[in-house]
Amino acid sequence: MTDPTRDLLPEGLEDRLPKGAAAAARIERAALETMDGWGYDCVRPPLIEFEKSMAERMDGIATRRMFRFVDPRSLRTLALRSDITVQVGRIAATGLADQPRPLRLCYAGQVARIAGEQLDPRREHLQLGAELIGSDTAAAAAEIVELAIATLEAMGARGISVDFTLPDLVDTLATEEFPLEPAQVPAVRRELDAKDAGALKDAGGEAYLPLLYAAGPFEQAVEKLSAIDARGVLASRIDGLRQIARQVGGRARLTLDPSERHGFQYQSWFGFTIYAEGVRGALGRGGTYRIGGSDEPATGFSLFPEELVEAAAANEPPRDALFLPLGHDRDAAARLRAEGWRTVAALGEADDAAALGCSHTLQGGKPARL
Amino acid sequence: MTDPTRDLLPEGLEDRLPKGAAAAARIERAALETMDGWGYDCVRPPLIEFEKSMAERMDGIATRRMFRFVDPRSLRTLALRSDITVQVGRIAATGLADQPRPLRLCYAGQVARIAGEQLDPRREHLQLGAELIGSDTAAAAAEIVELAIATLEAMGARGISVDFTLPDLVDTLATEEFPLEPAQVPAVRRELDAKDAGALKDAGGEAYLPLLYAAGPFEQAVEKLSAIDARGVLASRIDGLRQIARQVGGRARLTLDPSERHGFQYQSWFGFTIYAEGVRGALGRGGTYRIGGSDEPATGFSLFPEELVEAAAANEPPRDALFLPLGHDRDAAARLRAEGWRTVAALGEADDAAALGCSHTLQGGKPARL
Repeated sequence: MTDPTRDLLPEGLEDRLPKGAAAAARIERAALETMDGWGYDCVRPPLIEFEKSMAERMDGIATRRMFRFVDPRSLRTLALRSDITVQVGRIAATGLADQPRPLRLCYAGQVARIAGEQLDPRREHLQLGAELIGSDTAAAAAEIVELAIATLEAMGARGISVDFTLPDLVDTLATEEFPLEPAQVPAVRRELDAKDAGALKDAGGEAYLPLLYAAGPFEQAVEKLSAIDARGVLASRIDGLRQIARQVGGRARLTLDPSERHGFQYQSWFGFTIYAEGVRGALGRGGTYRIGGSDEPATGFSLFPEELVEAAAANEPPRDALFLPLGHDRDAAARLRAEGWRTVAALGEADDAAALGCSHTLQGGKPARL
Repeated sequence: MTDPTRDLLPEGLEDRLPKGAAAAARIERAALETMDGWGYDCVRPPLIEFEKSMAERMDGIATRRMFRFVDPRSLRTLALRSDITVQVGRIAATGLADQPRPLRLCYAGQVARIAGEQLDPRREHLQLGAELIGSDTAAAAAEIVELAIATLEAMGARGISVDFTLPDLVDTLATEEFPLEPAQVPAVRRELDAKDAGALKDAGGEAYLPLLYAAGPFEQAVEKLSAIDARGVLASRIDGLRQIARQVGGRARLTLDPSERHGFQYQSWFGFTIYAEGVRGALGRGGTYRIGGSDEPATGFSLFPEELVEAAAANEPPRDALFLPLGHDRDAAARLRAEGWRTVAALGEADDAAALGCSHTLQGGKPARL
């Protein structure tokens, strides 16, 4: 008996039909060409790895989000990748361990997660990104932010804004400037992230209150942060942020939210989120980190351009196509294809140029508009 | 404790490092551009589907080769795709059911299988292909064979040969020309495929013996096949083969092995295998078939170009790269990138142009060879 749900896809999984697939291919290609132009070599890790190997490199945080299954060959648990960054880190630590640093790598590929998110029910995404391995300085961070902007622009994003953060801010301040008991740190981090002044006080983080107001357009916010940092504990971080902002210059609107931590569990001193006009959520994130396992410093970004793909698919322009009637001149057709024409050959008498979406037909060895 | 196998990949799964990834990207792009030029629209189905939905469209034959796992959302079994053809068939029958026929679709993507094969232990492959949906005539088959050849040529294959077969040959002959009991058919098919004359006789297929000798270079073999077919049961098939051979003309070496059935369990009257010089096994297969579920006629091919990718990766030429010293002219760098230069920016004093693989360095706003 035929399964009545045979034609359905599981929740959160979709086909890209011709317009969507063309938009995705164009966007992916533009992104890879940009990253390649900045000296980033593309790598392609496999779809599947040992779950334990991926989990260990992810610090275990996100492993419950992966599809997992037993490998009948090794009898070990495999996982479908939910993030390509960790795979690139593994490649840097293994196959490319002997390459000189800084090592520049980029990637594009599909990732899957067992559950979507409230704002985005998709369970499969196109992930694109670049990793600069061997460096987590301000210069590395500036290159990565600039490249993320250039990549998004090549993908068609406009009105880009970048929100900087300092992921290890609380840890840094807690040791000296605004001392906290180790047990208090997670709660202070959480309430700062939630921007809940009352709860922050209750958690013993009263000294951290001014940080809630050191957020906004970059120049003003970094001044406020500097004023809070009376003893210069954050001086190197603030200098780094300023260096990045100078280099990124007028290419994007810059903001600072130093205590934002959501999505930056892996990052060290610097993190950023990137947005574009007309796109609901963040298009990507990046920052400095240490590669799980090898502990090598690195800086990178990941982009999740589904909304850009959807917008581009909706605006995909109609394309010319040349109908080749039955018995057409095959050499002429080959020549026209070599010149860039897209051809659609008749297979039988019933094939109709217009119905098949053609704009031209081959007449006397030349394209004639229908 | 660190897992000592953390750095290993499961058997049969591999990273594509920069040279392999560049070769794969170039080959994939060349293939997609060729298929697009022939009027085939690219689609991108998801990595995962309901196992039952894929299995039903595959006639259940290859489903035991898929990685399967339970979806915590639907509590149904999902499978990682092992073949994109069935997904394209589903798209034609659902999302693109209303599009005019013939419908031309193409695809490129990764597929995974739980076990490799003796000659090829890989468990993840790049699969590329085209499907012409709504037709399984000789004209459709000729277009598909021509396109498969053109696609492989664009991917860098040389010395292409195509081996034709008639997948439903035994079924066709058994009804009338060389009658068999239904129970005998599978054994006769098997022994013909195995080319075992003794076993073929034992299976009651003595009348089929001459078919074993109607194999070889196309023109001679099709003559022999025609001679065997005294009553013209195969006439339309033989005419079809000749039409395809005429159209494919001098573009590939053609052979015929009418009783070859291995790998053609889905195909109807026509099948083909495609090879290239210097490549060990078949690069792909194709033929006419009916889409599982909708029963619409279709013709298509799938290519598995791993060996072409490996060969191209080994011959990947070195690329020019322009080193950008510390404090370089950023506008000049952007201009040179726009002209096609690949740049590698220094991040610190220690960064060395030659060590980072650069061929040129930026001097006075211009590239100077190192």
